[in-house]
Amino acid sequence: MTKIAVDCMGGDYAPEEIVKGCILAYKELGIESLLVGDEEKIKHILHREGFGDGLEVVHAPDAVQMQEAPSNVLKKKGSSLYVAGRLVREGKADGLVSAGNTGAVLTVGKFIIGSIEELERPAIGVALPNPRHKTVLIDVGANVDCKPLHMLHFAVIGHTYAEEILGIKGPRVGILSIGEEEGKGNELVRETYPLLKASKLNFLGNAEGRDIYAGTFDVIVCDGFVGNVILKASESLGFAVLQMIREEVQKSLMAKIGALLMKPALNNFRKKADFTEYGGIPLLGAKKPVIITHGRANAKAIRNAIKVANEFLTHHFNERLSQNLKSLIPQEVKA
Amino acid sequence: MTKIAVDCMGGDYAPEEIVKGCILAYKELGIESLLVGDEEKIKHILHREGFGDGLEVVHAPDAVQMQEAPSNVLKKKGSSLYVAGRLVREGKADGLVSAGNTGAVLTVGKFIIGSIEELERPAIGVALPNPRHKTVLIDVGANVDCKPLHMLHFAVIGHTYAEEILGIKGPRVGILSIGEEEGKGNELVRETYPLLKASKLNFLGNAEGRDIYAGTFDVIVCDGFVGNVILKASESLGFAVLQMIREEVQKSLMAKIGALLMKPALNNFRKKADFTEYGGIPLLGAKKPVIITHGRANAKAIRNAIKVANEFLTHHFNERLSQNLKSLIPQEVKA
Repeated sequence: MTKIAVDCMGGDYAPEEIVKGCILAYKELGIESLLVGDEEKIKHILHREGFGDGLEVVHAPDAVQMQEAPSNVLKKKGSSLYVAGRLVREGKADGLVSAGNTGAVLTVGKFIIGSIEELERPAIGVALPNPRHKTVLIDVGANVDCKPLHMLHFAVIGHTYAEEILGIKGPRVGILSIGEEEGKGNELVRETYPLLKASKLNFLGNAEGRDIYAGTFDVIVCDGFVGNVILKASESLGFAVLQMIREEVQKSLMAKIGALLMKPALNNFRKKADFTEYGGIPLLGAKKPVIITHGRANAKAIRNAIKVANEFLTHHFNERLSQNLKSLIPQEVKA
Repeated sequence: MTKIAVDCMGGDYAPEEIVKGCILAYKELGIESLLVGDEEKIKHILHREGFGDGLEVVHAPDAVQMQEAPSNVLKKKGSSLYVAGRLVREGKADGLVSAGNTGAVLTVGKFIIGSIEELERPAIGVALPNPRHKTVLIDVGANVDCKPLHMLHFAVIGHTYAEEILGIKGPRVGILSIGEEEGKGNELVRETYPLLKASKLNFLGNAEGRDIYAGTFDVIVCDGFVGNVILKASESLGFAVLQMIREEVQKSLMAKIGALLMKPALNNFRKKADFTEYGGIPLLGAKKPVIITHGRANAKAIRNAIKVANEFLTHHFNERLSQNLKSLIPQEVKA
């Protein structure tokens, strides 16, 4: 049976909420986790929740801290994150979920678990909301200083994610640039463009920043530096907008009443807009699903992350990705 | 007397709103424009508005279209934009305002007007709103494929803009990267970091995407590719958020009433958030002020753009920029 290794010591509410999330995933979805971390603490929570020996626990004496340099995890072989990654690598677990130090989870994904054979590098894809549906932005931080071939791979990974997980057939793929016409953009974009054009992807050409939230593309490819700053800028813009609106609202009683009446609608919007609600961010192209959830993840978010990890398995994501890397990229480009 | 050359044939509402904007700038602020474009049409509007021969008109038989390739402007020597740029270069006007094809205005700024002696390239800086004040993001599209020295120059330009125009003393400067620590980021960032550190700028280190709208830095430096996609993504996110909220609001009568009550507060916010309200985007470091306004600019926006161009002159922006380039950058870096 499928088992997802869960780093029980990572995240702001670890181990309490993480363990509860594993219980939820088992009770509500029937998905088993391998709970990795401080055995005593984890078992205490399991017992208290009436889940005595229902879920397997693997002891790890150490934990990676949120503020620690990500590469440290490779030296901290007793950390829950490292142990969880090792269990996946050794085939004792089928996927990894962690709410811990994002960079460290990435490091484990890239260097302990590694990428599928056809890929040089895995990439992080996020499904960003737009008024029509969702757009996959890839890569948003796993890789800086990319080469054109990496970008082509990101496109195929994003295509596979859109098709297999988001259910978008024949996803429209673009490369993020400035200016719409071929030949516009920086060196990396100009060199990647012909590779995408020669591929069998549904490549529409350059996408611009404004396309990210407009629903005009299903997959937008960029290097991890650009994707990461866009993602973080977007989050920060969201917060700034809310705060600035709040300040304006505070100046008027009418507006305060209005805000109160609008609250349920705004909450609905917020749920749709928060891409972390869907169970975290996947490192795509790793040998087994790796799901990075928000540090603030509660039990429900962990349950959702376990669900997403399981979905990648039941949808045979990696098998489809391998096939797509072979069938969508012409032979001469691969060489 | 100071005269700003205004491209009267560029923008969605040209020449009508552009000419009216020049009249407003003269009537309300006492700033004279040189109106460049179809003489007959411009004079017709001036006469109709009771402004017969009050403002000088320079005829230009042609116009650059919005969808035209920006570089075309260099061949279209009879276009209002080219003529306006030429007047500035020849010293017959002291600045340029255009609501036309952004890329073409940039081309004129870079190649007809050119940058001040100490700079290799001018850059576009935008003052983005945040709950505390404003943050200058520079460059947002004038330069792709930058070198570390360009980035250092952008920092000094941004510093000067923040000090002289936004009134921020000792602006906190950061370089946009992924990860806070020195050594994080792509090659360009890693190579620029020591130059910024060695400068006399108030350099705080790496800024992350989340800092752009958080008010934690006054100036954030990035290459024009990255800045442009962030700027356009932000605008598009704003639209998407409004549309998604609108859809949620439509589902409930209460929310509809709430939205109505909140409207004045939301409009206030929108005014604060819309950086184009302040009179357009400046190309900083050009020999004379070049202000690019939105294609949708109306008379008031043009008036504001003329005002901003004039501010750069009265604040002696270029003189201060030259001084800063000399005094804030150590001799060994310049060489």
